[in-house]
Amino acid sequence: MSLTVAERKLLAEEWCKKAKGKMDHVAVHVGCMSLKDSQDLALHAAQIKADSIAVISPSFFKPKNAHALRSYLKAVASAAPNLPFYYYHIPSITGVNVLVRDLLVGIEEEIPSFRGVKFSGIDLMDFGLCFSLMKPNWSLLYGVDEQMLSGLVLGADGAVGSTYNYVGCQFNKLLSAFEKGELVEARTIQFKLQDFLGLAMKLGFDVGVNKQLMVEVSGLSLGPPRFPVMPCHPDVAASIKHKYESIFPQC
Amino acid sequence: MSLTVAERKLLAEEWCKKAKGKMDHVAVHVGCMSLKDSQDLALHAAQIKADSIAVISPSFFKPKNAHALRSYLKAVASAAPNLPFYYYHIPSITGVNVLVRDLLVGIEEEIPSFRGVKFSGIDLMDFGLCFSLMKPNWSLLYGVDEQMLSGLVLGADGAVGSTYNYVGCQFNKLLSAFEKGELVEARTIQFKLQDFLGLAMKLGFDVGVNKQLMVEVSGLSLGPPRFPVMPCHPDVAASIKHKYESIFPQC
Amino acid sequence: MSLTVAERKLLAEEWCKKAKGKMDHVAVHVGCMSLKDSQDLALHAAQIKADSIAVISPSFFKPKNAHALRSYLKAVASAAPNLPFYYYHIPSITGVNVLVRDLLVGIEEEIPSFRGVKFSGIDLMDFGLCFSLMKPNWSLLYGVDEQMLSGLVLGADGAVGSTYNYVGCQFNKLLSAFEKGELVEARTIQFKLQDFLGLAMKLGFDVGVNKQLMVEVSGLSLGPPRFPVMPCHPDVAASIKHKYESIFPQC
Amino acid sequence: MSLTVAERKLLAEEWCKKAKGKMDHVAVHVGCMSLKDSQDLALHAAQIKADSIAVISPSFFKPKNAHALRSYLKAVASAAPNLPFYYYHIPSITGVNVLVRDLLVGIEEEIPSFRGVKFSGIDLMDFGLCFSLMKPNWSLLYGVDEQMLSGLVLGADGAVGSTYNYVGCQFNKLLSAFEKGELVEARTIQFKLQDFLGLAMKLGFDVGVNKQLMVEVSGLSLGPPRFPVMPCHPDVAASIKHKYESIFPQC
Repeated sequence: MSLTVAERKLLAEEWCKKAKGKMDHVAVHVGCMSLKDSQDLALHAAQIKADSIAVISPSFFKPKNAHALRSYLKAVASAAPNLPFYYYHIPSITGVNVLVRDLLVGIEEEIPSFRGVKFSGIDLMDFGLCFSLMKPNWSLLYGVDEQMLSGLVLGADGAVGSTYNYVGCQFNKLLSAFEKGELVEARTIQFKLQDFLGLAMKLGFDVGVNKQLMVEVSGLSLGPPRFPVMPCHPDVAASIKHKYESIFPQC
Repeated sequence: MSLTVAERKLLAEEWCKKAKGKMDHVAVHVGCMSLKDSQDLALHAAQIKADSIAVISPSFFKPKNAHALRSYLKAVASAAPNLPFYYYHIPSITGVNVLVRDLLVGIEEEIPSFRGVKFSGIDLMDFGLCFSLMKPNWSLLYGVDEQMLSGLVLGADGAVGSTYNYVGCQFNKLLSAFEKGELVEARTIQFKLQDFLGLAMKLGFDVGVNKQLMVEVSGLSLGPPRFPVMPCHPDVAASIKHKYESIFPQC
Repeated sequence: MSLTVAERKLLAEEWCKKAKGKMDHVAVHVGCMSLKDSQDLALHAAQIKADSIAVISPSFFKPKNAHALRSYLKAVASAAPNLPFYYYHIPSITGVNVLVRDLLVGIEEEIPSFRGVKFSGIDLMDFGLCFSLMKPNWSLLYGVDEQMLSGLVLGADGAVGSTYNYVGCQFNKLLSAFEKGELVEARTIQFKLQDFLGLAMKLGFDVGVNKQLMVEVSGLSLGPPRFPVMPCHPDVAASIKHKYESIFPQC
Repeated sequence: MSLTVAERKLLAEEWCKKAKGKMDHVAVHVGCMSLKDSQDLALHAAQIKADSIAVISPSFFKPKNAHALRSYLKAVASAAPNLPFYYYHIPSITGVNVLVRDLLVGIEEEIPSFRGVKFSGIDLMDFGLCFSLMKPNWSLLYGVDEQMLSGLVLGADGAVGSTYNYVGCQFNKLLSAFEKGELVEARTIQFKLQDFLGLAMKLGFDVGVNKQLMVEVSGLSLGPPRFPVMPCHPDVAASIKHKYESIFPQC
């Protein structure tokens, strides 16, 4: 959301180009405050042969109910009718509290390309109730990294989250332990991640901190965040990095 | 909270008397808006030989931080120093958002009788982080019935919740399936409970509705709730009962 | 709310006794979490010949709508049918967001002793809309001290607030300036009070701080607050006192 | 926010062109989620010779404090350094709760073109405290139409709000009465406006309803709102129009 539409297109193009032959799936996020921008990005995603699109709800003028949200999503999807479509639910940031189970009712008729939800919420009753509405080709992906295990136990088909950029190997171990039914092991890894994120949150975890963490772990220079997100203070970065290394000595 | 201190004492006495030889454990809730009332109820619980006490935070004048909450709880516990003590965390009702992991730090020194938490919150990172602070004789009990399985997977030692009064047999099946590692079965039961509670919430689930449900299931006449809680409308009661019977044909 | 019912009775008795011949009006606040306690206090207020009672909504189990709140208030009023009755609206503390204008509709038939509202909210549209429902013997009193002038301009009949205990003389000057149509003068006083309260809020204004301020200004020893309210830190008290004296060199 | 950057430019151009010789002042709102878009719009506003720009805070990634918000606003202002600059504060929509009095400290050094605030909030202590920080060439404009009088009494230099599009003549009467010191008259008009807006809010007042009202009053065809805002239901429009005409038989 901090990028212009032109910048988002450029970025999406690069990801699609670089991912070819290396990554299984590139989903382009095309959510915007303006429907027209979202449609523009959706069409572009189709042109650059992205594998799918994901859409967040506008949060400035918010949809009042499931019908309004569905109407918006349908209008976006219609700009790229052949691209698999995911709804990205993150009420803590958007303030849009439409229940996902209400949104899903009949959505496959409105949006034939609908393929699932990235559910970044902590209302796990709403998450659980979505499973009874599932169609065979849908996925319910969980997006609250710090409690991933609680989403998995309800049947999440996978997970999408920003911290997987730098602690992905740990989450892979968690996923693998869970699949084998080794709950104690899965729990141990989840607790470590909570311990790590607990410190990060105490120190003001935001996009600036998150970006700095990616820099530390990847070794790549990613540049500063854009205002109003502030750059991570070096002391905060050092504390978090230290915590990270003490909890996860290797990956 | 709708009862006077005298009524609460009478009720606690009856429970302790009737439970003798029938129930393993009677925990008396002694949380009040006034510390003095809580101390009075704590002392009374000791006198009637309750097995433990549980305490909610005052919610009119709220504790500002973990230190203030700990100071309050310590003062309550001191009135019944030999009774096992549980903190009852339910931020959606109290509006007290002190992180439990912050509260627990050093609490065993302040409150030697401390034995655990009823955690009725949906911040499962906070719940998870409590486990690293656990002492051998503590229990972490989960209290959000509609997502019990997500608490169990993190290691909850048990569960306390109002709906267990009428769907307890279902939750026992869920617990048993979870213990055997039968996650698909556990999930199926959890989803049924979510389906049932989903309708109840849509119809305005509150203490009045909850009480009516207990009446329907137990066949006992429990009387109306006290204002400002309103009696459950008969149509609502009928809808919920119908749903209940269609989902759980027998127990 | 931090006091027991017995303590509240004792306090009310003392106020009524000491006020005789000195104060125009003693209103006893009888709001509680339990309707029975409120009725007990209402009856007691009548017995000790208080001039009126005021009632806050229960905030643990909250009324769901205006009808539920009216039912509760009616039941309290019925315990002291001859005492003038005021509803005390303070949503920032109770979390009860029932619109007062909805509550007032038809209330004089349900509660013949109804005489008005202490409106401690910042929704001034709701406050304004109450005036069209006013009966001749009602009063609408405003209770957000830091913006009293904004309540006065809409027609408030008076004001009730905790800070009037120590800056009452300033507010009297504000009232007097307003009545004379000297808005610039009234505004100047309001801004001074905002300046003073602005510092107090930055330093964590709560009942503990408020009580300490009363100690400083009155010179009386009032004792510490009761947990979970914490005593005001001496440094905070000193800063606020210094600010107070620099803004209001005399009263 | 529902428009693309290109559409916003087109609209701003038309306003500047049509306003020439007819309106005193055209302020272009250039707030966006992306700083770059805001800078683009600010530069464009300068090129089309708008009289000033106003900027809302990004609300997707929110500024954490006054410093972060000031940094963002400064970066926008630097794209059009000669255009008078206004900060547009509307926390109920943005969720950005930075106190305006904190934002204003030293802002004239960071943003030499700073000229004031559109304050669309109901924290009138914060509003009041801004006046002590005022510079001679600043304006503090109030933006909560339904309680304009409460802003005026604190010294607001004017008002900006969406309902002035169709009830502007009433607000002009209110302003005029207030300036003459006729508070009873000013109050009477404010109450009528509250009565009207009270019904509108009960019926779900949003941009769709607001737009429909402009259609009814202006007689111009303005077209439907853009998703996720839904068109106003004809029954709602009829009810509101009826109310409008009964309260304001003529203007």
